[in-house]
Amino acid sequence: MRFLFPLIFSSVSSGHNFSPCFTSRLLRALSSKPQPSTLTTFFNWQLPPMAAPEESLRKALAEKQLAVEAQGNVVRALKAAKASKPEIDAAIEALNSLKLEKSSIEKQLLASVSGNDGDGAFSREAFRQTAVNTLERRLFYIPSFKIYRGVAGLYDYGPPGCAVKSNVLAFWRQHFVLEENMLEVDCPCVTPEVVLKASGHVDKFTDLMVKDEKTGTCYRADHLLKDFCNEKLQKDLSISAEKAAELKHVLATLDDLSAEELGAKIKEYGITAPDTKNPLSNPYPFNLMFQTSIGPSGLNPGYMRPETAQGIFVNFKDLYYYNGNKLPFAAAQIGQAFRNEISPRQGLLRVREFTLAEIEHFVDPEDKSHPKYSEVVDLEFLMFPREEQMSGQSAKKIRLGDAVSKGIVNNETLGYFIGRVYLFLTRLGIDKDRLRFRQHLANEMAHYAADCWDAEIECSYGWIECVGIADRSAYDLRAHSEKSGVPLVAAEKFSEPREVEKLVIAPVKKELGLAFKGNQKNVVEALEAMNEKEALEMKAALESKGEVEFYVCTLGKNVPMKKNMVSISKEKKKEYQRVFTPSVIEPSFGIGRIIYCLFEHSFYTRPSKAGDEQLNVFRFPALVAPIKCTVFPLVQNQQYEDVAKVISKSLTVAGISHKIDITGTSIGKRYARTDELGVPFAITVDSTKDVTIRERDSKLQVRVGVEEAASVVKSVTDGQRTWEDVWANFPHHISGSADD
Amino acid sequence: MRFLFPLIFSSVSSGHNFSPCFTSRLLRALSSKPQPSTLTTFFNWQLPPMAAPEESLRKALAEKQLAVEAQGNVVRALKAAKASKPEIDAAIEALNSLKLEKSSIEKQLLASVSGNDGDGAFSREAFRQTAVNTLERRLFYIPSFKIYRGVAGLYDYGPPGCAVKSNVLAFWRQHFVLEENMLEVDCPCVTPEVVLKASGHVDKFTDLMVKDEKTGTCYRADHLLKDFCNEKLQKDLSISAEKAAELKHVLATLDDLSAEELGAKIKEYGITAPDTKNPLSNPYPFNLMFQTSIGPSGLNPGYMRPETAQGIFVNFKDLYYYNGNKLPFAAAQIGQAFRNEISPRQGLLRVREFTLAEIEHFVDPEDKSHPKYSEVVDLEFLMFPREEQMSGQSAKKIRLGDAVSKGIVNNETLGYFIGRVYLFLTRLGIDKDRLRFRQHLANEMAHYAADCWDAEIECSYGWIECVGIADRSAYDLRAHSEKSGVPLVAAEKFSEPREVEKLVIAPVKKELGLAFKGNQKNVVEALEAMNEKEALEMKAALESKGEVEFYVCTLGKNVPMKKNMVSISKEKKKEYQRVFTPSVIEPSFGIGRIIYCLFEHSFYTRPSKAGDEQLNVFRFPALVAPIKCTVFPLVQNQQYEDVAKVISKSLTVAGISHKIDITGTSIGKRYARTDELGVPFAITVDSTKDVTIRERDSKLQVRVGVEEAASVVKSVTDGQRTWEDVWANFPHHISGSADD
Repeated sequence: MRFLFPLIFSSVSSGHNFSPCFTSRLLRALSSKPQPSTLTTFFNWQLPPMAAPEESLRKALAEKQLAVEAQGNVVRALKAAKASKPEIDAAIEALNSLKLEKSSIEKQLLASVSGNDGDGAFSREAFRQTAVNTLERRLFYIPSFKIYRGVAGLYDYGPPGCAVKSNVLAFWRQHFVLEENMLEVDCPCVTPEVVLKASGHVDKFTDLMVKDEKTGTCYRADHLLKDFCNEKLQKDLSISAEKAAELKHVLATLDDLSAEELGAKIKEYGITAPDTKNPLSNPYPFNLMFQTSIGPSGLNPGYMRPETAQGIFVNFKDLYYYNGNKLPFAAAQIGQAFRNEISPRQGLLRVREFTLAEIEHFVDPEDKSHPKYSEVVDLEFLMFPREEQMSGQSAKKIRLGDAVSKGIVNNETLGYFIGRVYLFLTRLGIDKDRLRFRQHLANEMAHYAADCWDAEIECSYGWIECVGIADRSAYDLRAHSEKSGVPLVAAEKFSEPREVEKLVIAPVKKELGLAFKGNQKNVVEALEAMNEKEALEMKAALESKGEVEFYVCTLGKNVPMKKNMVSISKEKKKEYQRVFTPSVIEPSFGIGRIIYCLFEHSFYTRPSKAGDEQLNVFRFPALVAPIKCTVFPLVQNQQYEDVAKVISKSLTVAGISHKIDITGTSIGKRYARTDELGVPFAITVDSTKDVTIRERDSKLQVRVGVEEAASVVKSVTDGQRTWEDVWANFPHHISGSADD
Repeated sequence: MRFLFPLIFSSVSSGHNFSPCFTSRLLRALSSKPQPSTLTTFFNWQLPPMAAPEESLRKALAEKQLAVEAQGNVVRALKAAKASKPEIDAAIEALNSLKLEKSSIEKQLLASVSGNDGDGAFSREAFRQTAVNTLERRLFYIPSFKIYRGVAGLYDYGPPGCAVKSNVLAFWRQHFVLEENMLEVDCPCVTPEVVLKASGHVDKFTDLMVKDEKTGTCYRADHLLKDFCNEKLQKDLSISAEKAAELKHVLATLDDLSAEELGAKIKEYGITAPDTKNPLSNPYPFNLMFQTSIGPSGLNPGYMRPETAQGIFVNFKDLYYYNGNKLPFAAAQIGQAFRNEISPRQGLLRVREFTLAEIEHFVDPEDKSHPKYSEVVDLEFLMFPREEQMSGQSAKKIRLGDAVSKGIVNNETLGYFIGRVYLFLTRLGIDKDRLRFRQHLANEMAHYAADCWDAEIECSYGWIECVGIADRSAYDLRAHSEKSGVPLVAAEKFSEPREVEKLVIAPVKKELGLAFKGNQKNVVEALEAMNEKEALEMKAALESKGEVEFYVCTLGKNVPMKKNMVSISKEKKKEYQRVFTPSVIEPSFGIGRIIYCLFEHSFYTRPSKAGDEQLNVFRFPALVAPIKCTVFPLVQNQQYEDVAKVISKSLTVAGISHKIDITGTSIGKRYARTDELGVPFAITVDSTKDVTIRERDSKLQVRVGVEEAASVVKSVTDGQRTWEDVWANFPHHISGSADD
């Protein structure tokens, strides 16, 4: 699998695909501006107005700067000549007016280079800050080992985050493993070197690094170059249009640069270590795997796995047997993976340890149809094919069936998984208008891959790759077959044996020995190495002429070949089966990234009843909400507390995670607390007979009998009925004293 | 947490408890023989008959050996003297008879030293072999990286094993986290050194190792000594009773031996490297953590966590706040932990990477009551208190409430968790007669621990520690407070401020300076360091005599102390709260060990219908069964297949994991396959209206309508109804053609 970031934040090398050469990053960047959101959040960033073309702005700015300087000279000259006050004042007014115009152009330019208007960027930042503050304060996540000042790139999930994560994984198991009858496995994280040598990670899972030559501090080389270019573009408005274009080109081609090219750019721009301004070393590759040693000898190097997929590939033979030697079948694994990032950024999105959920669907390369394809064929969602990216268009809604039938998506099985991923993400609560499937450009894909699509989710950091869905052909199984010597193949048994014609080249060794003596072996090998076309041509020539010149490369010369020296024929043979290496289609889920995007898509603020503050809400669907229900006695009162405890017990029996809050805090504050954890329902006990159930987003309340309360909440959190249905079937409660 | 093995297999140092000194291992070994099992398995090992006391057997054997030798001399002498044939024959007959007697004693001795009769040991081995063969063949687990010849101590869970594991973990979450409202967290495996330095793992999480001095191959020192002693005891029957006692004493005290003592024993017994017979190095400690490096600099050492507990301790402050600054509360974590074993043995029981589920329950050390204690008080199960172990008795059934009230179990909260663990394990399917709670002996526990109990499960390897339940007092929080400088404390707010008397010692510096000049500082410190008793005695003495001799240890002499030099008084102060470090009670679950024992307890064989072979069955409860139901068409037939698919779809909607088998195999074979995976129910489609549902262990079948089939299976797998209830309410099916 591969995880990529949109251009403006970071670039990446990762996963199986070791040759990222993204020459067309510029095109992707052009189309990576936020998509309109149809969500009616109270607090969200605004869409940018259309900015004037950047190049003409730069030219206008340069001209205006010259005009300001010229007018400044005029003012100075007038003052030096002791001109009249009205004359000088008029000149100063003209100067100020020019400065204002210049400032306005600067503002437009700034907006243009940062991809939106200044306010938009601000509100995106502010949105993230509010969301992240809430997430950290309510312990959705916590920087790991905080009391020891933490470790960059390591995070804990606190209680509500951990519950969301376990709900997401449980749904993943239900949606993929159970519904598709996948074979789930669970392999260790500690992996011996030989496995990751075969997969290519030992040699190629690297990022380019530079070191501060005096302190030894390490930096990612591309980050430094990127930061330099971005800063220059955004803060130094005096640079020429040509220079700006050059910097943009560097940004766009950052991932394609070799160590030498990166080093040359760093030298050319005079980039130094950010903290010390010391000179930097040349870039060199740093392997991103955490290395360790297995056993006490120190002789068996091992690594913490960078992905879970390899554990499945090495078990292919057993899993194929377990599946009754039948294709297709899918294996799946959920587990930790590790990446020793050089300098992690961006909170939960780029971390050193993360949970992956990966599927390897093994299929006959000659038949990539899928029996359940028809179930997804009519789904319609944002797709961003290669074509649209290359021609500078944006993602558009496409019916999945059309994308497959037009060949935009390579095959049915790949299409099926794209559809299933779409359903998975949107059911979790990902906003479908901020979710797109982006096809890899030809130069982004590994040479062996047939087609790749990323599910990208838009959040305040831009479009984030959260799921990769790749048709990796037979690459992985072949690599492990070769390295281990164990054939990882499947066989199609023919219902009836098939007759096939096979070419047979039979050198007549006696004749060849007489003719070529010591060179006989080289000649025999050269004869046997002929392909079908060459052999048939020789056969024809020998039959017509009796002798031909034959080039033996290991001898470096032609030898005379006679009819009696070799017999070439086509023979019929019976074959009972076809043996082949299966193709693998791999949907790979970055669970932490999905969860972070889900946090952002679920977060909004709304004014408190008094209107004096903004209250935070997570609109999690019941499926992922960390707690499904809270139970409050309206006032502190033994009878109400007893009722609350009875309801709590029924909820426990029903398996509904909930929280009971018997503090004396006002009901409004308790609702606010519960909204901030994304709890969808609250039961308030205000009598011993009936209670109210409040829905989080609508704040609507119904009256339900005490005995029924738990089962009503269960039915609506389990998805057996909707809140609308509950609202239609129970008496409504009009609250006077509460928050709504 | 600590995981221990029974004496005869392995000893261990691990977890937080770094000072294991098990001087009484012999006592434990005496009581670690298999307990009677009430399970009516067809294939199980037999209980040993009472063996004659070993010492007298050794003496008898030595005497008999002498008698054999003497009679041999007699025979030789008769032959040399050319005595008559009848005379020689009679002597030979007597010799043979003595040899037979000797052989019989040898047999008894062998039985005695191996803890049971020879047949018992054999059937235990054979049972394990059959179970393990089935487990590996059906991919419950797989040696990891098998195609690369594997890595010792690393195992994959294949599809059914992975499903069992995820069911066990889901039930753990339901039984502990949800029912007890625990705060679940999820922390990374990669851990910086400072955290594990504070916890003590960097310095003390070690095993003693020796190296082959020529090849460098590493061995666990205690394993070599243990193997030597066991082999000597079991195979060299000529050793004296004294020697046998010595070897047994070594085995019993193996865990107490220092590196020097171990080295001396290895020298004394002339133990060499098992593979090469080369001499061995002296034993030295090897740290069992997998080490790595965080980030690219190589300057930040890190380790793969050896347990999950530390992630909870370092988050105590945030979790306490999250819980509204209230005690008690429990935090929980499920995750991978790592141990770089020197030379792993015993399959799934001793591995280098494993899943732990740990609970840290924080309580006020002055109040260890538990609000739900009454729910477990009447449970009665096998307990093995310290007292019984020391006096050589065996585990006995004790009512939990009695164990707590008699002070055998230290406190209510510890008792509560022991009861909850008992319920958890037995509901999973662990046989209650092969489960005991063994209290740690005083010298097994760390100095700070208040009390520790291990849930031990008996399997073919002996009694295996699967859950540790320890009252660790304030040790862990204090260690991290000290190292991090962040106070990890709780506060009890008083409802009303309390007036407390505090001792105030106020040295009068002016007078002291005049009297002691340069020594003033030492005198002041000594005065301030007095405890209450000393200070009050001085106050009384000064008041009555006006002057006393006062010993200043930093000066090494008495000084004269006068009334005007110090004021000592008791003052009343108001206190608003009590600040303290909470105690922690830690139940820690080795999930892989529990699962392995569950496999053994669930496994049995029964004869096939024809009686020609033994069929394997896992009697998993529906709760943990990897697949809840299989669906078969009775014969290959489109109509039946369609019905099977409809039922399959309903099962998927109901969230019931199942498998559909439309191969043409005989129904008997298909039942056998499904029994071998522990699938509790099978639906056989033999009409388009009704189907049969078969229960695995009883092999009973009922007739159920097609539309009802999925919901009947759901109700009985969810535990809403029992099979007996189903059997009582549906028509019975009497099968003619199937396996039963």
